[in-house]
Amino acid sequence: MKIDVLTIFPNMVNGPLNESIVGKAIESDQLQINVTDFRDYSTNKHGNVDDSPYGGGAGMLLTPQPIFDAMEHVKTNNGGKLGRVILVDPAGKQFDQHMAEYFAKEEQLTFICGHYEGYDERIKTLVTDEVSLGDFVITGGELAALTMIDATVRLLPGILGNSESAPGDSYSSGLLEYPQYTRPADFRGMKVPDILLSGNHQKIDQWRRQEALKKTLIRRPDLLEEFDLTAEDRKMLDEIKINLHHKHGLQ
Amino acid sequence: MKIDVLTIFPNMVNGPLNESIVGKAIESDQLQINVTDFRDYSTNKHGNVDDSPYGGGAGMLLTPQPIFDAMEHVKTNNGGKLGRVILVDPAGKQFDQHMAEYFAKEEQLTFICGHYEGYDERIKTLVTDEVSLGDFVITGGELAALTMIDATVRLLPGILGNSESAPGDSYSSGLLEYPQYTRPADFRGMKVPDILLSGNHQKIDQWRRQEALKKTLIRRPDLLEEFDLTAEDRKMLDEIKINLHHKHGLQ
Repeated sequence: MKIDVLTIFPNMVNGPLNESIVGKAIESDQLQINVTDFRDYSTNKHGNVDDSPYGGGAGMLLTPQPIFDAMEHVKTNNGGKLGRVILVDPAGKQFDQHMAEYFAKEEQLTFICGHYEGYDERIKTLVTDEVSLGDFVITGGELAALTMIDATVRLLPGILGNSESAPGDSYSSGLLEYPQYTRPADFRGMKVPDILLSGNHQKIDQWRRQEALKKTLIRRPDLLEEFDLTAEDRKMLDEIKINLHHKHGLQ
Repeated sequence: MKIDVLTIFPNMVNGPLNESIVGKAIESDQLQINVTDFRDYSTNKHGNVDDSPYGGGAGMLLTPQPIFDAMEHVKTNNGGKLGRVILVDPAGKQFDQHMAEYFAKEEQLTFICGHYEGYDERIKTLVTDEVSLGDFVITGGELAALTMIDATVRLLPGILGNSESAPGDSYSSGLLEYPQYTRPADFRGMKVPDILLSGNHQKIDQWRRQEALKKTLIRRPDLLEEFDLTAEDRKMLDEIKINLHHKHGLQ
């Protein structure tokens, strides 16, 4: 996979990229990342990349010229081809695990990271996807792009080691994760639930499923609506609901 | 404001922190950030911080001891007091602009960044908030913590310069942003809408409101439900809906 990142803060992108999973993917030759400072493409003699908005208003906007020219350079560098071009924008479609899975199947991704008040609208003619990391405002697109890259790259085959393995991950299974415990069995008086020490794997699996269902019901009932519940799950959920009602004195 | 970050990848946190808005806040003495590598607190002779889960399963979990001891250190460093302690966890409450505003009012925040398959459940007894950046899985909590810190710090008084000013931000106003344009008026044949060049500020404001309502209606109708629409907004929305129906041949 090839990933290009367009930014005016290349240091903010390069540092974290080389740490953790993304650096590992680069070393394994599964990933090539190019970070382009689009300020280098500004034809303005002061290297400006922003200007005030037409029609008035606070803040500065990224001007089209440097980003258009930097994108030409990215295209040339990729043999005249461009895959998905992702504009990191709070008004975009919300990034989620499905989008990460979708991105992980692409051969080439380009992320354009904004700053200041926003983009000149014409920049959007260059992009295939406007994507937001969530319902919050950050000062630039870099951290959002890094996060999306991390979520995508960890899905590439052979990247995750055993210690980071994916199967039980929240959102990949569709339920929130059950509580997990490791040694010691008694840490400063806090004990691991007996069942996990029992060696009875059928009961452990049952307990974990029940705890995952309970946590999801309490915290993210919206996830249950999309989840393909088994008959056993439904029975467990009914029991959980009855217990919760008792606990909160609702019956 | 004081922020502590607990991580086993301190380089991943330190680099981006010094760039952009957070570095500016640190320079202005409005913010003090301490990054603690909790591996340094492991009493295990190999410096281990993870172990396999009780009851079986893939992946490794963060053990309680290093994080408990690192938190003691953070507490001592902060004069025996701890403010909010945020566990970055995909099963946590979803981070949003309201939470950023809430965090920005605190005197002290501590972020615990996880790795591997997850945390030993007992670590959660140390925290006040379990927070998720969104419905996706990343390899560690660092990028999520950095993003939350950025969203929080930019709200501290006096941090944002004019070029990054906040008033029209998506999600702060409750509507998605209207399209914005800067010079040149004609860029490679793509023209700025005439109205923005008209100098008629009343009409410009009206056009912008209409575009913001339209974008929000199409992309994020859920935001409109929470938004306090004026009578004028409702009239505009009715017209927008009629036009969209015509455009898509629904009438």
